[in-house]
Amino acid sequence: MPIKSRIRTIPHHPHPGIMFRDITTLLKDPVGLRTTVQEIVKRYQSQHISKVVGIESRGFIIGAPVAYQLETGFVPIRKQNKLPAQTVGRDYQLEYGSDRIEIHVDAIQPGDRILLVDDLIATGGTAEAAVRLIREMGGDVIECCFVIDLPDAGGRKRLEQLGCKVFSLCEFGND
Amino acid sequence: MPIKSRIRTIPHHPHPGIMFRDITTLLKDPVGLRTTVQEIVKRYQSQHISKVVGIESRGFIIGAPVAYQLETGFVPIRKQNKLPAQTVGRDYQLEYGSDRIEIHVDAIQPGDRILLVDDLIATGGTAEAAVRLIREMGGDVIECCFVIDLPDAGGRKRLEQLGCKVFSLCEFGND
Repeated sequence: MPIKSRIRTIPHHPHPGIMFRDITTLLKDPVGLRTTVQEIVKRYQSQHISKVVGIESRGFIIGAPVAYQLETGFVPIRKQNKLPAQTVGRDYQLEYGSDRIEIHVDAIQPGDRILLVDDLIATGGTAEAAVRLIREMGGDVIECCFVIDLPDAGGRKRLEQLGCKVFSLCEFGND
Repeated sequence: MPIKSRIRTIPHHPHPGIMFRDITTLLKDPVGLRTTVQEIVKRYQSQHISKVVGIESRGFIIGAPVAYQLETGFVPIRKQNKLPAQTVGRDYQLEYGSDRIEIHVDAIQPGDRILLVDDLIATGGTAEAAVRLIREMGGDVIECCFVIDLPDAGGRKRLEQLGCKVFSLCEFGND
C-alpha cells in the first residue's frame, strides 16, 4: 500500500516499547505527499466543508494542503500560549499529567462545517479535546481524519462515543 | 493589498513594544489561503524545486500546500528533540539566550534544489541556521520565501550576506 509503506517505524521512541510511526518519510516523497492529500480531498470534496482545523504541528502539514485543495480556510489548534490573540482552551489528560490546547475565539463561526485533521490517532485525548472545543464554538465536526490510526490505543472508539465519524488512511498494530 | 490587509496586528505581543503580525486571520479565509499559496507557487513553478523545507510550525502551514502544488516533497525543520529519527542540528542566538533547530539526516540529498519557507522573517536567526543546515547536507537553497518581511529587523540583509535570495509577499514597518 503506497501510503503505509512510506511511513517509517522507529522502535522504542520516545520510550521503550513504543513503535513510533514517522510520517516524514511519506511527506518528503512527492508521490507520498500527493497521494496522502489527494486521498483525503477525494473523500471530502462533496461534503461542503467550510474550514479545515489542524492540530499542532504535524496536523498542519496534512491539514493545510487539504484546506487549499478543498478551497476552505485553515485553522490551527495549538498548545497553550502559542496563539497570539484571544483564545478558548481545553485541558486533557495524558498518561502522566495533563496538557492544554487552544483555538482563537474568532476562528470558527456557528454552523461552520469542520474537517478535523491530524497525522495520527492513538488514545484520542487531543482529538477529543479538539472536538469539544470546536463544538463549544458552534462548529459542526463533519469527520475527524487521520493519516494513521492505532486502533489498539482506543482513540477511534473514544471519538465515536462522542458521536464523531472517524476516517484514517491506514492502521498500525503494535508490532 | 489582499494578503497584507488580511494579516492581523496584535500590539504589544508577546512583549511591550512588539507589533505581532498574526497570519491566522489570513489563513482562515479561503481566498487568503488560496492567494498566499498561489502567489508563492507562481514564482517557483519553473524553478525545478525538488523539496520545500518548512520551519516549525507556521512554516508548515505555508510550506506544505506550496510543496503539494509544486509536486515536490515537504521536509520539516523542527525545534530540538521533536524529530524522531537521526538528526543534524544547529544552535543560533536569540535576543536572550539561544535555541536549536534540527532536520533529519536523510531529509535532503546533495543536489536537492530547496525552497525554504516560513511565515515571517524578522532578525533572520532561525532562517540563517536553516540555510546553513541545508547547505551542510548538500542542498542548494534556491530562495528563502516568507509571507511577511520586517525589513527593520534586518533578516533579509543577513540572508543576502550568506548569498541567499529572499522573497516576501508583504512587508511591515514598526507601526
